[in-house]
Amino acid sequence: MTITTQTLKQDNKTMNQREKKCFAVLTMAIVIATGTFLQAAPAVVNVADFGALGDDRADATPGVRAALEQCRKTRAGRLVFPKGRYHFWPEMASEAYYFISNNDEGLKRIAFPLRAMKNLEIDGQGSTFIFHGFLNPFILDGAKNVTLRNFTIDYARTFHSEARILGEHADGLDVEFSEAYPYREDNNLLIFTDGGEKPPQETTTTSREVVFPFGNLLEFDPVKRETAFMAQDYWCANGLAIEKLDGRKVRLLKKGLKGTPGNIMVFGARDRKVPGIVISDSENTLLDHVTIHHCGGMGVIGQRSRNINLQHIRITPTPDSGRIVSITADATHFVNCSGKIEIGHCVFECQKDDHSNLHGIYARVADRDGDRTIVVQLVHPQQFGFDFIRPGLQLELVQGASMNTIGLAKVKSVERINKEFTRVVCKDPLPVELNVGDVVAEMGDYPEVYIHDCRMRGNRARGLLLNNRGRTVIENNYFHTPGAALLFEGDARYWFEQAGVRDCVIRGNTFDNCNYGLWGQAAIEVTPGIEEKDRARSRYNRNILIEGNTFWVFDPRLLRVYSADGLIFRNNKIEVSTDYTAQYPDAKPFVVDFSDNVKIEPPVQRQP
Amino acid sequence: MTITTQTLKQDNKTMNQREKKCFAVLTMAIVIATGTFLQAAPAVVNVADFGALGDDRADATPGVRAALEQCRKTRAGRLVFPKGRYHFWPEMASEAYYFISNNDEGLKRIAFPLRAMKNLEIDGQGSTFIFHGFLNPFILDGAKNVTLRNFTIDYARTFHSEARILGEHADGLDVEFSEAYPYREDNNLLIFTDGGEKPPQETTTTSREVVFPFGNLLEFDPVKRETAFMAQDYWCANGLAIEKLDGRKVRLLKKGLKGTPGNIMVFGARDRKVPGIVISDSENTLLDHVTIHHCGGMGVIGQRSRNINLQHIRITPTPDSGRIVSITADATHFVNCSGKIEIGHCVFECQKDDHSNLHGIYARVADRDGDRTIVVQLVHPQQFGFDFIRPGLQLELVQGASMNTIGLAKVKSVERINKEFTRVVCKDPLPVELNVGDVVAEMGDYPEVYIHDCRMRGNRARGLLLNNRGRTVIENNYFHTPGAALLFEGDARYWFEQAGVRDCVIRGNTFDNCNYGLWGQAAIEVTPGIEEKDRARSRYNRNILIEGNTFWVFDPRLLRVYSADGLIFRNNKIEVSTDYTAQYPDAKPFVVDFSDNVKIEPPVQRQP
Repeated sequence: MTITTQTLKQDNKTMNQREKKCFAVLTMAIVIATGTFLQAAPAVVNVADFGALGDDRADATPGVRAALEQCRKTRAGRLVFPKGRYHFWPEMASEAYYFISNNDEGLKRIAFPLRAMKNLEIDGQGSTFIFHGFLNPFILDGAKNVTLRNFTIDYARTFHSEARILGEHADGLDVEFSEAYPYREDNNLLIFTDGGEKPPQETTTTSREVVFPFGNLLEFDPVKRETAFMAQDYWCANGLAIEKLDGRKVRLLKKGLKGTPGNIMVFGARDRKVPGIVISDSENTLLDHVTIHHCGGMGVIGQRSRNINLQHIRITPTPDSGRIVSITADATHFVNCSGKIEIGHCVFECQKDDHSNLHGIYARVADRDGDRTIVVQLVHPQQFGFDFIRPGLQLELVQGASMNTIGLAKVKSVERINKEFTRVVCKDPLPVELNVGDVVAEMGDYPEVYIHDCRMRGNRARGLLLNNRGRTVIENNYFHTPGAALLFEGDARYWFEQAGVRDCVIRGNTFDNCNYGLWGQAAIEVTPGIEEKDRARSRYNRNILIEGNTFWVFDPRLLRVYSADGLIFRNNKIEVSTDYTAQYPDAKPFVVDFSDNVKIEPPVQRQP
Repeated sequence: MTITTQTLKQDNKTMNQREKKCFAVLTMAIVIATGTFLQAAPAVVNVADFGALGDDRADATPGVRAALEQCRKTRAGRLVFPKGRYHFWPEMASEAYYFISNNDEGLKRIAFPLRAMKNLEIDGQGSTFIFHGFLNPFILDGAKNVTLRNFTIDYARTFHSEARILGEHADGLDVEFSEAYPYREDNNLLIFTDGGEKPPQETTTTSREVVFPFGNLLEFDPVKRETAFMAQDYWCANGLAIEKLDGRKVRLLKKGLKGTPGNIMVFGARDRKVPGIVISDSENTLLDHVTIHHCGGMGVIGQRSRNINLQHIRITPTPDSGRIVSITADATHFVNCSGKIEIGHCVFECQKDDHSNLHGIYARVADRDGDRTIVVQLVHPQQFGFDFIRPGLQLELVQGASMNTIGLAKVKSVERINKEFTRVVCKDPLPVELNVGDVVAEMGDYPEVYIHDCRMRGNRARGLLLNNRGRTVIENNYFHTPGAALLFEGDARYWFEQAGVRDCVIRGNTFDNCNYGLWGQAAIEVTPGIEEKDRARSRYNRNILIEGNTFWVFDPRLLRVYSADGLIFRNNKIEVSTDYTAQYPDAKPFVVDFSDNVKIEPPVQRQP
């Protein structure tokens, strides 16, 4: 462990005032840009005039489609929903093929297809939107100045399923499903459905049965409303054999499968085909007072977009539903975005993956052809089709093993071979050191990120993955995550996510008993995906200030750091808790390796 | 049973001469149109000049892509392959989303993407093309005057798998795989792979493992090279539990699963994502001397295309491979085609579905909106995206239950809602009788079909599905099919295939012991999908002449007919065989119901 006393390269002392001013100005700029402030009385379209009725029965999809068409034609500024409960079915929905980063690509049905939509506010006025089947709620694509506000998203049948654990058995685990999770047995395998018609014969050729594939099992604690203490993921993407017991009880035939009676076993959605709100290649998006009780993918996913503002977004299970899980993947996620990303006054809880992840994408060099041409490959299947390389772009050239920057290169021309491979010709000769297996990413234009006053808890895995090169401020949030609350990651071998902060402030947050699960080693981890042999020569994350935070801990593991340059930990409080059983009582609170300019002030510690 | 002695409405006596002349002229017209006859010396592009080498090692895909580009640029008339063994991988292949009727839609990699290609002959000069993984060999799309000749298509790893049956067990069936079919066990389930890398953890998120999903089991007889006598389909599209035994032996855990030791259990490909040669929206296509040992879908599928000529096409398992199955679905299939379809001197054997099916598509009326507007739905999932309704088209309006024509309607405008639903506005008011549940199809412009001198045997299911309104002649073919050799089908409730012949001649064919399986009730069946209660009021198939054929039969079931008008059965021979055990020795050879103008001459019958 190496702790140095050098100061950070940049003075962080006066950030608080500067930031507040800066963000106030930026917020005002967005308000003006989105036309919600200065424009006096934009034309208003009412969905009721187009047959979409909030009467909790009819399919609102065709009416909304027609109303959106009217907004386009008349350049209306607002689309409003009389407060009600609107249902949306996929049958009459719009359709388009989308590659959505870190979710699953596909030909998607879309209830609100906001392609090239400009200067529009959609106001639910407190309505609830109930979606049925594989229907994507909102996709903004090439949109500008769009605001979504005052509505709740939910689904008639969830993409995941839940069962009460009855007890362990020599062959596996016995569970019981409520009526909310229709299922059937097919060739001894468990199949989740929407309870609709079973196919007329066992072939699926003409079946219109809606099936919800599952890919993993994870135990939740319904009293604490979080993943069960130290629960592990069980993977079963290819199916799971069962034995039917009486009623709605089944025996899951998987040896070694454990679970506490009374807890909930969650059958996680196999795919991420139906994220809640997609913001792709768009500018100036505001989401305000939107609740997402459920969707089949990430809650809000932004890609290649500029200026995204999330205010009062709530991702939480449907009240009184008996459901433990909210959405099936990350609450929010931002890839190759720019401008300003703000997440304020939000609640993210009980979703099946991280709270947020802000990163770029590395494409792997698959071939070199002469001194100016490379063929690059998007390696992670959920990054296929993520076309970010365009003529004029500055590429960062990165050594794959150490993730050290080799150099820069300006793109001259691009030929897309398919969703995986792209041929890139650069303006100038590329460094000879750039080899197959190294990676390239977008250089510059990283966003400013401000995440504040949010409550994040009870999900699977980690809290915030801070992988952004632009200034990042994490302030006044509450974290109760089973893995690391804050993770500085990035790698060029598995996830291929460009990361490496340059200026990150973590201030005034509460870390409440994090790491009660298996997804991390400390409340804050600066642990990029660099193999141990390469860590000494890498300083991937830089300039992290951690101050004025409170850590409630049942295990002493606070901070794990390697390959960093510039980290200050000061004025933090620790409160020792007995809420969970310590797993590593003798662990060191701070573990720092292969780093420079790390300064750690021993925190004030109180016993319970 | 009703047999009438009235003559057919049309005199079929002199067809033989007329037809031959007609087809000779048409064939000449195609030869001229495709430029293979009169054009003296078209510019020739050699794939070797573009780096595609038939050396049995390198990836020929980029070279072929570049050579095709050169053909476009220079308007070359021929693309030639020096005789060799060429390999094609999906990595660098072209990509496009295709809806291919009766196969599975998707974003496809394509080795020979012949989009809008004109006046080109691709000559393999005896080469073999080996494809790897989910790579589509040929897609002609909007092509004109394209000829493919002199090559063989095969795959490094088949989309289906085969195992030798060891014996039955109380829990299922024990089988053994050869090294040709890599597999692994995952959570007690059987997974077929290409033998490549297993994913690093059990999640499939970043796995690049190539998996070959299976959906059914069918037993084959390796001595007779056909489906085992009276073998049934077992469906298991959602997976199959297994127990690993020693070596490459496994126990298939499916109670009631039967099989004869020494026979082959075939694990059929679940999807039809990779048909061999797709001819979509194209004109004047000639396939000549092409062998397809394997592909993951139909061998040749034509849709919305005019003039398709198949000569000397062989669909047969790879010699000396030990493989029992050739391709995973129908040998050929033609949907909404026009002009002339000829299939001559072909061999189709051991494929996993019918030899051919020539039909139109019915779209179901899902909604009526006023007197001129309907919303129609493509119901069969493998017909999704089949956009055949266009302004100016004459629609046939059909009563769903009886499949009687209600009337016609000219299309004024079309709005595609998504791949399933289309809104159609007609020029004139629609009949009041047209209701939700009725269907519409393309009227007129049906192709002439001539299938002759082909050998068709040993496949799953039926022989030819004759569902074409244009003149259809089936002559001098050999059939040995486990179901009906010839089936006149069509329905508006399950497959939604427009059928109903108007002029069909079946002459000089040999039917060798058909119906040795479970897919039919007679060698020739005229049995459209009309429910029994509606058959009396329908005469769906008309004018069928069956003459001069030879039937080898182990069961007396020759002909099953209902809802037909005009059928002559004359001058046919029957040879009673003992090659199989009779299952219905007391059945009637002719069963005719709800038909007019049916004339059956008792055939000459010889005992063995």
